Amino acid sequence: MHFNSAGAMTMPSYKLTYFNMRGRAELPRYIFAYAGIAFEDRRVEWKDWPSIKKTFPLGKLPVLEVNGLPLTQSLAIARFLAKEAGLVGNSRLAEAQADALVDTLNDFTLLIPWREDNPQIKTQKIDMLFQSHAPKLLDHLQWQLGDREWLVGDSETWADLYWHVCFTTFRVLRPGFADHHPALCGLTDRVEAIPNIAKWIQSRPTTEF
Amino acid sequence: MHFNSAGAMTMPSYKLTYFNMRGRAELPRYIFAYAGIAFEDRRVEWKDWPSIKKTFPLGKLPVLEVNGLPLTQSLAIARFLAKEAGLVGNSRLAEAQADALVDTLNDFTLLIPWREDNPQIKTQKIDMLFQSHAPKLLDHLQWQLGDREWLVGDSETWADLYWHVCFTTFRVLRPGFADHHPALCGLTDRVEAIPNIAKWIQSRPTTEF
Ligand SMILES: [Mg+2]
Ligand SMILES: [Mg+2]
Repeated sequence: MHFNSAGAMTMPSYKLTYFNMRGRAELPRYIFAYAGIAFEDRRVEWKDWPSIKKTFPLGKLPVLEVNGLPLTQSLAIARFLAKEAGLVGNSRLAEAQADALVDTLNDFTLLIPWREDNPQIKTQKIDMLFQSHAPKLLDHLQWQLGDREWLVGDSETWADLYWHVCFTTFRVLRPGFADHHPALCGLTDRVEAIPNIAKWIQSRPTTEF
Repeated sequence: MHFNSAGAMTMPSYKLTYFNMRGRAELPRYIFAYAGIAFEDRRVEWKDWPSIKKTFPLGKLPVLEVNGLPLTQSLAIARFLAKEAGLVGNSRLAEAQADALVDTLNDFTLLIPWREDNPQIKTQKIDMLFQSHAPKLLDHLQWQLGDREWLVGDSETWADLYWHVCFTTFRVLRPGFADHHPALCGLTDRVEAIPNIAKWIQSRPTTEF
């Protein structure tokens, strides 16, 4: 919250710039949706990117502008918003556990060979990733979840939302990847059942990734 | 702080497990040193690692045990400690800026070809990294620093400590890498002049990385 010159509380203005895909902007978008915070969801066309790239720090997206101040790094942006939304965890230990889960999910997404040009090699690399790394990741997440409803503590955090974001993309790559981890599929369902998240998933632009 | 059964405040017990190198444990160690918090600095010998690897979540280090509870992911561990040490930044925006700088420095360290076996190819790859990526990184950091003393706001944060950790390792790889960025070298000097950090650097085990 901020106060304008008349002393009235005003919400900060939020502009999130990324491409027309879920990608690295989708977690911030989920958190905006969850918290019911209005934001400008600016989606740059690929043809326009070369001419505006230099206007962004390090020439990278996403960037979140908060009252015009640019914040970089998707996870730093998401954590900033998760604090506003009350989604970071209920204690310092819980916050650290959520941070670690987010980083662990992110480490896996960084192993996906997005930029491999040869389609056969790309398929092979994705197969290997989902055969060798994914089961360890899923076992770890299922262990962390235990028989609770959410990954950290007794209520949802941004780690649960990030699980859903990642699940959605992993499922595009290898549809049955989580079939042997029913507890995690249950978590997916619980995130989807959050009304504001359900509404966002219904209304967002449809893109493959 | 925690309370024991007699009601007296007790410090949590901290055990940080990693290898005998700076690597991904050095930022948590700097924060412990900065805050004057006692911790067990457990350094696993390579020969012992295969037999104990399975006892750590995802088989990875570092792990910080807080009263026996294991926390994973070096940056989540560091952020947890930075909160205890008052090093995360003085506002939510400052916290997000520090988080983003840490992630940006970390992104660069992830590009270093640590596991390249061929020494000639390794040299080539490191040369390319320091010729193509490093100047952009350093320009960005120098822009973020501006004419202030610290990277975020008016006082030191864990982003400044991480700069020093990274600087120390980058300098081993390419000694003159920051010569054209005197403001950043000034920042290095300021971090080294923090008495508790100076003491840690003096007393820590000497390792190449
Ligand atoms: Mg990591
Ligand atoms: Mg990143």
